[in-house]
Amino acid sequence: MSDQEKTEWIPIGFVKTRARGREVREKSRVSTIVIREDLVEALKGLDGFSHVFILFWMHEVTVGTQGPLQVHPRGRPDMPRVGIFATRTPQRPNPIGLTLVELVRVEANIVTVRGLDALDGTPVLDLKPYDYMDVTDDVRVPPWWLRLRAKRPKKGATRS
Amino acid sequence: MSDQEKTEWIPIGFVKTRARGREVREKSRVSTIVIREDLVEALKGLDGFSHVFILFWMHEVTVGTQGPLQVHPRGRPDMPRVGIFATRTPQRPNPIGLTLVELVRVEANIVTVRGLDALDGTPVLDLKPYDYMDVTDDVRVPPWWLRLRAKRPKKGATRS
Repeated sequence: MSDQEKTEWIPIGFVKTRARGREVREKSRVSTIVIREDLVEALKGLDGFSHVFILFWMHEVTVGTQGPLQVHPRGRPDMPRVGIFATRTPQRPNPIGLTLVELVRVEANIVTVRGLDALDGTPVLDLKPYDYMDVTDDVRVPPWWLRLRAKRPKKGATRS
Repeated sequence: MSDQEKTEWIPIGFVKTRARGREVREKSRVSTIVIREDLVEALKGLDGFSHVFILFWMHEVTVGTQGPLQVHPRGRPDMPRVGIFATRTPQRPNPIGLTLVELVRVEANIVTVRGLDALDGTPVLDLKPYDYMDVTDDVRVPPWWLRLRAKRPKKGATRS
């Protein structure tokens, strides 16, 4: 890569939540994203969308050292060992989280969302509105993915 | 932010495409992602999914200088001026692109996809399998979004 290419990200804001540890995975949880005050104008019109993708940096994941390239999804030994790019594990070369959330409201620089599985203090990289280009009719997932979800409460699997 | 927090991303691979300029937006275009050879094991099982999110760094976007915080979507003056976080414009604090693509095949370290709107040589940050958690039944988008798509060929709007 040339020196001209920037390889640093900057936080656009931070996650604020009372959820601790695994509680953040509860899809009904409401969190807020406190956007940098100098970026407040960039939120105009976001509330026209019902859903938003949140991109965040999973700062609690150990980085710098190369983790395993294959994992058992959710650490479950009854699941096949698959490559990290076939999972949403935080253990990846760039620990970027991507979660579809329901937009509750936007007030000044505070974005309130439902269903964000990010820990308190997580740096946020980007907000992207969810639109029809993000939907496809013919999704196919492997059998292990369906087995993994089958044991979770229906609410968590359907998200709405 | 503390010094312990890493704020650099690393490429996991690069986009290879013959499409130039706006041609990359054609949803039927096939591109390949050449994954770093040391990461080939991380692709195991990805082919069990029909669709994948590609996260990439839009390296051709001028960074370092703060761009406008509000834009007319696709530069069209007949569209309302909205915040960059209400659009998918590349002009954003972290020029990260997020595109849902159809997975064509995975062979060794070469991932072939259809519908990736990234230029040749674009550094790729992450691949994430698309699953039912990324789908929602009750999407709402603002009127301008629908108007913007209405003038594009149907094929581009439906993606499949």
